[in-house]
Amino acid sequence: MEWRDQTITVELLTEEKMREKYDYLLFSAGGDISKEYAPIAKEAGNIVIDNSSYWRMHEEIPLVVPEVNGHILRDYKGIIANPNCSTIQMVMALAPLHRVYQMKRIVVSTYQAVSGSGNKAILELEKQNDDPNYPPSVYPKPIAANCLPHIDVFYENGFTKEELKMVNETQKIFNDETIQVNATAVRVPVFNGHSESVTVTFNSTPRLLEVRELLSSEAGITLLDDPAHLKYPTPLEIQGSDSTFVGRIRKDLFDPCTLSMWIVADNLRKGAATNAVQIIEKMEEMKH
Amino acid sequence: MEWRDQTITVELLTEEKMREKYDYLLFSAGGDISKEYAPIAKEAGNIVIDNSSYWRMHEEIPLVVPEVNGHILRDYKGIIANPNCSTIQMVMALAPLHRVYQMKRIVVSTYQAVSGSGNKAILELEKQNDDPNYPPSVYPKPIAANCLPHIDVFYENGFTKEELKMVNETQKIFNDETIQVNATAVRVPVFNGHSESVTVTFNSTPRLLEVRELLSSEAGITLLDDPAHLKYPTPLEIQGSDSTFVGRIRKDLFDPCTLSMWIVADNLRKGAATNAVQIIEKMEEMKH
Repeated sequence: MEWRDQTITVELLTEEKMREKYDYLLFSAGGDISKEYAPIAKEAGNIVIDNSSYWRMHEEIPLVVPEVNGHILRDYKGIIANPNCSTIQMVMALAPLHRVYQMKRIVVSTYQAVSGSGNKAILELEKQNDDPNYPPSVYPKPIAANCLPHIDVFYENGFTKEELKMVNETQKIFNDETIQVNATAVRVPVFNGHSESVTVTFNSTPRLLEVRELLSSEAGITLLDDPAHLKYPTPLEIQGSDSTFVGRIRKDLFDPCTLSMWIVADNLRKGAATNAVQIIEKMEEMKH
Repeated sequence: MEWRDQTITVELLTEEKMREKYDYLLFSAGGDISKEYAPIAKEAGNIVIDNSSYWRMHEEIPLVVPEVNGHILRDYKGIIANPNCSTIQMVMALAPLHRVYQMKRIVVSTYQAVSGSGNKAILELEKQNDDPNYPPSVYPKPIAANCLPHIDVFYENGFTKEELKMVNETQKIFNDETIQVNATAVRVPVFNGHSESVTVTFNSTPRLLEVRELLSSEAGITLLDDPAHLKYPTPLEIQGSDSTFVGRIRKDLFDPCTLSMWIVADNLRKGAATNAVQIIEKMEEMKH
């Protein structure tokens, strides 16, 4: 396969190959492949970083955003799960605040780009932008000029799988089952870059000046918060960056322990590939 | 002016004209015009229904969604304010629940269509969908393939005027200053139809079955809530309807007094023109 100026050899995945020894294995071919092959690779002593959702909620599998809970990977071997894109950017922005003020409850509404559904979805949005009658196939309804409150499957309790991922993965990453998450996941006609409207209630009262300091000094976070000068993140502006962008930080008008903010990240980068690569970097760093 | 198969006479607005007697006067030409001419018309004994934001928060001016608080217009003469589009659809969906369970707190994130900014904004989105480099002029940043957490001007406290409208107008319409509203208003690349992700906490525990019954039997509300059969409202599907559509109703996973829901309405209809016309209908109805 040609990629940029390199020729990359693509080999067929086999059980034998998984029994060989690798520095790291990155899985990103869906849950079924991960379910079948990751345990074989692990058995052979490999470290597997899995981008699928399959292993995320298995109790013995670490679910890692390196900046937030990378320390749990010290001396670890085996399968490591890469969280869901919407979860990663939210916990990135909340981690430095949680350390100081202790989160109690999060209400989040997402504005998710079609790139999260793969290249076919990008084409579907392009085609529908040109021709509103172009029939949907990736999504159940037209996505152009529309908003779909429907990502992944629905459960009996009325939430979608995507929304419950944000609940369960957030609790697991912070290792705290008392954190309440109420999520609404919505697909919007944006090609790339997820946005999130987050309202978070802490156990103690955050001071805005300190909140800004905590976020500005956090690795992997870019504070873009000066609305009078049009400084707030939008998906179009932050594409291609590995950072998580935070803006529109403000105190709730009624509850001094509650903050609202707007969090945007490139879902293909920090929401997926970048986070997986950073897991490797973190593990290498902890070897020294 | 030709409109459909009718010829409509357009006359110049003058103070003299406002001193004549009319059944009803509908104002929809911006705050400055309303500020200057509505009091003259009122002085002459007219009923003015004003679509601008100018009179909404004046204490002596009724702010009305007919289904919610239309009764306050009985025997009223003078200026009546039509609420902001985002507020109208939210209070429509919440009113029947508030009557039974008493609202305490609302967290809302909006997904607002460009039609709310007028025809120029529709053209801007069309042009940018074709050419991503088409420069923004209605909006401060490109709206195509983007989300802008910026509607109307910013205040010192970090909220936008649009967000504070949702706080203040909701309290005024329900005549209850204890109702807490936390709003995030976001413009999305949708031509027409506003969507809202609403999480509402009541003083008592709502029962889902009863919630659905209350909403289905409410005039002006259409319950579209059977996600397993893809029944949830989207802006593209509900365009041209005078109803407010509610779906994705579910109980919070942690707080039995909290519900989440997805509310969609045609912002040019129920969010503006329809509500103004319904104010007239309600006043006529109360004459009998």
